[in-house]
Amino acid sequence: MARIVQCVPNFSEGRDKDIIEKIVEEVRKTEEVKLLDYSPDKDHNRCVVTFIGEPEKVIEAAFSACKVASELIDMSKHNGEHPRMGATDVIPLIPISDVTMEECIEYSKELGRRIGEELDIPVIMYEKSASAPNRENLAAVRRGQYEGMAEKLKDEKWSPDFGPGNLNMKAGVTAIGARMPLVAFNVNLDTDNLDIAKKIAKGVRGSSGGYKYCKGLGIEIKERNIVQVSMNMVDYTKTPLYRVFDTIEREANRYGVNVIGSEIIGLLPMNALIDVADYYLKIENFDYGQILENRMFE
Amino acid sequence: MARIVQCVPNFSEGRDKDIIEKIVEEVRKTEEVKLLDYSPDKDHNRCVVTFIGEPEKVIEAAFSACKVASELIDMSKHNGEHPRMGATDVIPLIPISDVTMEECIEYSKELGRRIGEELDIPVIMYEKSASAPNRENLAAVRRGQYEGMAEKLKDEKWSPDFGPGNLNMKAGVTAIGARMPLVAFNVNLDTDNLDIAKKIAKGVRGSSGGYKYCKGLGIEIKERNIVQVSMNMVDYTKTPLYRVFDTIEREANRYGVNVIGSEIIGLLPMNALIDVADYYLKIENFDYGQILENRMFE
Repeated sequence: MARIVQCVPNFSEGRDKDIIEKIVEEVRKTEEVKLLDYSPDKDHNRCVVTFIGEPEKVIEAAFSACKVASELIDMSKHNGEHPRMGATDVIPLIPISDVTMEECIEYSKELGRRIGEELDIPVIMYEKSASAPNRENLAAVRRGQYEGMAEKLKDEKWSPDFGPGNLNMKAGVTAIGARMPLVAFNVNLDTDNLDIAKKIAKGVRGSSGGYKYCKGLGIEIKERNIVQVSMNMVDYTKTPLYRVFDTIEREANRYGVNVIGSEIIGLLPMNALIDVADYYLKIENFDYGQILENRMFE
Repeated sequence: MARIVQCVPNFSEGRDKDIIEKIVEEVRKTEEVKLLDYSPDKDHNRCVVTFIGEPEKVIEAAFSACKVASELIDMSKHNGEHPRMGATDVIPLIPISDVTMEECIEYSKELGRRIGEELDIPVIMYEKSASAPNRENLAAVRRGQYEGMAEKLKDEKWSPDFGPGNLNMKAGVTAIGARMPLVAFNVNLDTDNLDIAKKIAKGVRGSSGGYKYCKGLGIEIKERNIVQVSMNMVDYTKTPLYRVFDTIEREANRYGVNVIGSEIIGLLPMNALIDVADYYLKIENFDYGQILENRMFE
């Protein structure tokens, strides 16, 4: 199987095309790494870059891009609508194929160590890589933003995991962490009754007592005159798509409503769908190694 | 997406390990080609080799292995239980990922041309690559076996598509052709009544009026005291797994019997299962390009 990690760093530059291209070029030129997307946002003055590849090479590309960002972006002059604290604001690392979360955490720490030591940038590890529970949530890590970081880092609760103990005035602070891939999964209902979508969303999402790794909202799709349960599946290995889909279908039927379709928005790991096939076909003892494509790159 | 073709050549040597290893080594040493399996059979005096890879490289590996086989195997001295006509008896080429059947047919012809011209072996193209309907079926192509080929090739109906018009006494004749991947798919029923499995198999298989690209039999699984509809899905793009599974489930219910599980034997292309997930989740407008792993090698 191919070992694949996804990386989605956010850089604090969304206006200067020259700077954006120079950062992205570091990813593009790294072998065994595939640049999938980069979307600069002028209002946020921020650019989200998405790439995948062999884990060591992904780390290398992320480090190089972060280095260039630290040279070309001056946080003391940065403004934009999105909360931010560093030239490279955050680097999420996501295990996609044949890489465990534990390995991904190790890769994130290796990257954090290099950025801290070689680039002299304070690094706070977050999400699955957090060194303490208060650091798991990115919003909490970033609270106070760049302007508040000189002060915040003095608090032992927020002392950097890697790099200097003080703010890097130019490059700010970088958050790095491993997290599960997120699958944007929406289920459409043949009614215009928003209450039904809201009730079902409340039933399936973890925050109100439903499936732990499902976040969901009921919304209207006005152009189609239907409603939708719009979800983020934040760990498809523990809260699989088929279980949530089946529950939505049953609950919809209870209101005399049918599921007319679903949508996968953006990208997802193959296994999130293979698990669905495995479930509905009731396959006994299926092994991901039986998939020919997985054998190609093992 | 990675472009992948599978190749499963059959060589007429199942006893001499040294010869077998020399043939297999040609595959093993080809870059961007992955040897998956080789299984020599002493009674058949035959070895089936399975490998996958980038199409051009697969052709190269198949040609090299065929060349070595033509040097090391003497068909005039061959005996074995399995019908055979050449040192390299047959080379099936199978499109797995991001390669169309039409492209695969072209690759098979390129391979046929090279084997015919450079190795001086008569080549008959079969299955999807056949130049006439009577050549589609491998058993028909091979009828008469090595011993009958000198005579058979004189018949215009069987004149080689590539290479010399006469038998190569040492290497025999090679059949080459593109075909769809075959998925071995079995569905288990919670009854020991073999008649029910047989009736259902008859209902779903193409030969008796069922799904065109499904072959099936009802068999007993004595150690589990159940019966099984044992199938070969010979074109999952036209007769998908979910449709056959659903039909079996409905027909089983008609006899008061339940489907308790299914089995995938051996390897299958990813899309055969992605299509199943797409169906049961009723995904609207799904694109294989949304699968992260497919983006890695495009």
